[in-house]
Amino acid sequence: DSKLKIFTCNSNPKLAHQIADYIGIPMGESHTTSFSDGEIQVKLSESVRGCHVYIVQSTCGPVNDNLMEMLVMVDALKRASAKSINVVIPYYGYARQDRKARSRDPITAKLVADLIERAGAQRVITMDLHAMQIQGFFNIPVDHMLGVPILAQYFRSKQIQNPVVVSPDHGGVVRARKLADFLNAPLAIIDKRRPEPNVSEVMNIIGNIEGKTAIVIDDIIDTAGTIVLGANALKEGGAKEVYACCTHPVLSGPAHERLENSPIKEVVVTDSIPIRSENPTSKLKVLSVAPLLGEAIIRVHEELSISKLFEIE
Amino acid sequence: DSKLKIFTCNSNPKLAHQIADYIGIPMGESHTTSFSDGEIQVKLSESVRGCHVYIVQSTCGPVNDNLMEMLVMVDALKRASAKSINVVIPYYGYARQDRKARSRDPITAKLVADLIERAGAQRVITMDLHAMQIQGFFNIPVDHMLGVPILAQYFRSKQIQNPVVVSPDHGGVVRARKLADFLNAPLAIIDKRRPEPNVSEVMNIIGNIEGKTAIVIDDIIDTAGTIVLGANALKEGGAKEVYACCTHPVLSGPAHERLENSPIKEVVVTDSIPIRSENPTSKLKVLSVAPLLGEAIIRVHEELSISKLFEIE
Ligand SMILES: Nc1ncnc2c1ncn2[C@@H]1O[C@H](COP(=O)(O)O)[C@@H](O)[C@H]1O
Ligand SMILES: Nc1ncnc2c1ncn2[C@@H]1O[C@H](COP(=O)(O)O)[C@@H](O)[C@H]1O
Repeated sequence: DSKLKIFTCNSNPKLAHQIADYIGIPMGESHTTSFSDGEIQVKLSESVRGCHVYIVQSTCGPVNDNLMEMLVMVDALKRASAKSINVVIPYYGYARQDRKARSRDPITAKLVADLIERAGAQRVITMDLHAMQIQGFFNIPVDHMLGVPILAQYFRSKQIQNPVVVSPDHGGVVRARKLADFLNAPLAIIDKRRPEPNVSEVMNIIGNIEGKTAIVIDDIIDTAGTIVLGANALKEGGAKEVYACCTHPVLSGPAHERLENSPIKEVVVTDSIPIRSENPTSKLKVLSVAPLLGEAIIRVHEELSISKLFEIE
Repeated sequence: DSKLKIFTCNSNPKLAHQIADYIGIPMGESHTTSFSDGEIQVKLSESVRGCHVYIVQSTCGPVNDNLMEMLVMVDALKRASAKSINVVIPYYGYARQDRKARSRDPITAKLVADLIERAGAQRVITMDLHAMQIQGFFNIPVDHMLGVPILAQYFRSKQIQNPVVVSPDHGGVVRARKLADFLNAPLAIIDKRRPEPNVSEVMNIIGNIEGKTAIVIDDIIDTAGTIVLGANALKEGGAKEVYACCTHPVLSGPAHERLENSPIKEVVVTDSIPIRSENPTSKLKVLSVAPLLGEAIIRVHEELSISKLFEIE
C-alpha cells in the first residue's frame, strides 16, 4: 500500500544502510551537503509522494550540524508530500539539559523536541533517552527503545563468571537493575559523596564486589571521567575485573585516552553514535542497533499502513 | 518602567557592544560556550525578569552553531521570565533557499523563521533580507532595515566623480535604484545570458558605463564569483574604476582571493557579519550598522514600553 522509505543524513549513514538491509529495502536516495558558506543543502533524488518516510539521524557531534540536517530534511520531505515523516534518532543529544538545574538555565531537551516537531516530524523512534521524562516533551508519539537487551546478550555470550552489575550513580539504578536481571547477577551502586565543600568526592560502593567481575552500565559515556573514577574505586574495592558499557558512546574530549589508561578491560557500546576519534581506545566493542531499530520501523510501518496517523494533541 | 537589556552570543559580540554603547546601557552579562561534546551552554548572569530583552546574533558562519546559540538563549530567556524577547539578526542566513527552485527543495528561510518563533522570540529586527517575502515567513513583527543609506553615505563622502550604480542582476535593480537615487547617479544593469546550453554566460551591460566609476551593489557577497565576473565585464566595457558594495559580507571559500585579484578597487561592506578570514582581502572597507540597529531598538523599546506587545496571529 503506502511505501516505506528510509533516508539518512550524515550522522549515521552506515547504521541507516544496515537498517535498510535488515528491512530488505534499498536506501532512499538523497544528498545532504553544505554550500560554500556552511548552510545545509538537502537534495532528495527520488519521489516521496504518499510514502511513509523514516529519517535515521542522531543528534550527536557535530551536534548543531546534525540537528539542522535533520530539520532541513524534514522540511524538504514535508514540502515533497510525504505521507508521514518519522525521525529515527538513535542518540537524542541536548538531553542532559532537561530541567532548570540552576536558575536561568535553558531546557534544551524540550527546545530540540519543539524544533523537531515544528519542522514537521510526526513520530520519533529513539533509544535510551537520558531521562524518561523527555518523552513528555514531545506532542507526537515517541517509540522508546532500550539498549540493555543488546548489551546483555553480548555479556551473556561472553559467559562472564561471577558478575556484578554496577550503577555509577543513583540515577542509573533502574537501568542497572534491568541488566542485572538479564544476567541473573547481583547489583551494586557507586555512591558519590562530597564530605565537605571543596574536598574531593569519595566513591563509596554499596553492595558486594569482592572478587567479582564488575559490569558498570550508564546511558552515556561522554568524557569518561565518572566511569574511570568508578572503575578505579571498584578495583580498589576488590573487583577482579571491570567492564564498562553504555548505549551512547559520546566519547568527547579526553574520553578515549582516559579509557585506554584505565583499569577497564573492555568498553561495550552501540553504534547509536559512530566512533569519530582519530585515535580511538583499543578497548571498544561496538554492537549494532540496526536489528532493534529495523524491527521498530517495521512495527510502526504496519501500524501506519492500517490506520491513520495517531495524533496526541 | 520595564528595562531594556541587550545580550549577545558569539556571532557579533563587538557589534552588540557597540549597539549597547550607542544606546547608552551596559551589555547584559551572559556566557555562551559549549560543553565538551559541542552542545551549547548558555548562562545568563543577571536577572531578566520583566525586562524587554534584545539578542544581537547573526546566523552567519558557523551558521548552525550561531543559529542554535540564538535558539538556546531565547529558550533560557523565556524560562527566566523576560517580558519580551526580541532578536536582532543583522544577517539572516539560510535566506537563499526561499522557494522551491527545484522539486523537493526545502525552504530553509521559512524553516528558520519557524524555529526562531517556536523557541519563543516575539519580534525580529533584521537587515536586507535576501528576499522581502521572507518577512511574510514570520508571524511576529519584523522590522526590516536597509543598508543602502549607510553605503550611500560612505560613497557620498568619497565624492566620486561621474558615478554609475550597477545592479549585478535583474533581481537587484530595486536596491541599486535606491543607491542611485541617494547618489544622484544613473543606473546600469548586468544582464547575464547563456546563449546556448553548455556555453558559458555572456555578460551584457545595459546602460552607459563608458568612462564612469561603477559602483556594483548586491545584498550578499558570498564566493564573490558573480561580482568579480561583473567587474571584469564593466572594465572591458569601458568603466574607469569599479567599486563593489554589499550589506552582508559572507565571503566564503575563494572570496577573499578572488576580490584581491580582481579589478575591483574597494569592497565596501557592513559589520552585519564579522570578517573571519585569516587572510582577508586588503580591499575591504567595513561600515558599522550599530547606530542603525541601536536606533531601531530604541524605537521598538519605546513602542513596547507604552503598549502591550502587538501580536499578529
Ligand atoms: N552536553 C553536556 N555535557 C556535559 N554536561 C552537560 C551537558 N548538558 C548538560 N550538562 C550538565 O549535566 C547536568 C545534568 O546531568 P544529569 O545529572 O546526569 O542529568 C546538568 O547540570 C547540566 O548542566
Ligand atoms: N548558502 C547558499 N550558498 C549558495 N547558493 C545557495 C545557498 N542557499 C541557496 N542557494 C542557491 O541559490 C539560489 C537562489 O539564489 P537567488 O536566485 O539569488 O535567490 C537557489 O538556487 C539555491 O539553490
